Amino acid sequence: MNSRHLVYGLHPVRALLERAPASVDRLLVTHRDRGAHSELAALATQHGIPVELRPAATLDRLTQNATHQGVLVLLATAPQAQDENALEGILAQAERPLLLVLDEVQDPRNLGACLRSADAAGAHAVLAPRRNAAGLTAAAIKTAAGAAGTVPFVQVGNLARTLRFLKGAGLTLYGADASARTAVYDTDLTPPCALLLGGEGQGLRRLTRELCDGLLTIPMTGAVGSLNVSVAAAVCLFEAVRQRRPCPGGPA
Amino acid sequence: MNSRHLVYGLHPVRALLERAPASVDRLLVTHRDRGAHSELAALATQHGIPVELRPAATLDRLTQNATHQGVLVLLATAPQAQDENALEGILAQAERPLLLVLDEVQDPRNLGACLRSADAAGAHAVLAPRRNAAGLTAAAIKTAAGAAGTVPFVQVGNLARTLRFLKGAGLTLYGADASARTAVYDTDLTPPCALLLGGEGQGLRRLTRELCDGLLTIPMTGAVGSLNVSVAAAVCLFEAVRQRRPCPGGPA
Repeated sequence: MNSRHLVYGLHPVRALLERAPASVDRLLVTHRDRGAHSELAALATQHGIPVELRPAATLDRLTQNATHQGVLVLLATAPQAQDENALEGILAQAERPLLLVLDEVQDPRNLGACLRSADAAGAHAVLAPRRNAAGLTAAAIKTAAGAAGTVPFVQVGNLARTLRFLKGAGLTLYGADASARTAVYDTDLTPPCALLLGGEGQGLRRLTRELCDGLLTIPMTGAVGSLNVSVAAAVCLFEAVRQRRPCPGGPA
Repeated sequence: MNSRHLVYGLHPVRALLERAPASVDRLLVTHRDRGAHSELAALATQHGIPVELRPAATLDRLTQNATHQGVLVLLATAPQAQDENALEGILAQAERPLLLVLDEVQDPRNLGACLRSADAAGAHAVLAPRRNAAGLTAAAIKTAAGAAGTVPFVQVGNLARTLRFLKGAGLTLYGADASARTAVYDTDLTPPCALLLGGEGQGLRRLTRELCDGLLTIPMTGAVGSLNVSVAAAVCLFEAVRQRRPCPGGPA
């Protein structure tokens, strides 16, 4: 049983059963008759998905002692990347698009962490070039903690062409760049936009940077002065969440 | 040569040479006479630290092909955790303390990622209990990307007692809790404060939560609805950075 075919934890499992039941082969639960477990079992049964009762030790072993919360699904197929043709549909469904674009991120765990943060922030898709960049490997899917099955991951053949398409579709492109003069906090992220982050240690490529409508930086005060790409992505995405809240308030 | 004794990259190496030259055994550079390299070599020489010229391939091998930017230091000793006695001095030196408290984070890579983000956000220390929590292992030091040598990591014997001490010292304690009603964005993080995050999957322990002055949540809209602890820490820390900027402005 390949680890790329497992998703576990109450939230990710519920998300999959609700959004992509066809991708689920089986649901394993440690309790069939208790609270959230019985609810998920009922949801699976509605979709004709077999539910199996298993001891916690089995789930511990399958997940290598991760926090599975007593529920685990086996996927019929591994999460798949989509191609550029999916973008039009994704944008059409999003009321106010928020995309994350990764320019040659190499480490699949960083890609997985970006997918997880993008999902949590409600981003509509994560985009990356098909070449010279991490894809949806087992490591990426594991680090995504279920989000590889929920937030669309779009691999594109020509990133520059895709960025021009996004601009044409009305999105503003913001590139994260350590040398930018404008803080992410002073950038208006409320309109439809894409946040672009460069690969580990290399930053954005020249052409990618030139296609941006604006560059932004995360102000850093420490000695090391660099953030992991998935952390930088999360800080920018959640700044968009903050700005887009319907009722901002409080002391800030 | 143990990986826990290496620090590389322009920023981390400069930080170490400036802040803790006594901890540095040797500086390896790929160019002795070029820009930032010659600057760092001069800085090392000032402190009586030997500088060695090495081919890039040597640094590639030592760092396992990480982004070393042509500079690497060998540490005389591995970064060390401090104990609770260090806290008074840390607080005395900080104009407006910002601490990160990790309540039983188990994965050393999560600890390392938290140290890196805490450093980037200018936090004054990262605290954790000595028992049932990750310590400064080789994996933690590597993931910290230099920050294990710059931001103090304080291991305490009794977290509840330390939290009471911090309150007595005038800090407000904010616990991150998924069920909290107040968003981190609506919490005033400008006064001296500590941000408390729970371990992977478990959240804050009951006693820890009870000692908090307030609970806050990061609003999530995705399907998976959970963040890695180091990402959650970064989102909270950089919200403090945003609120504490001297001249906030812009459209937000």
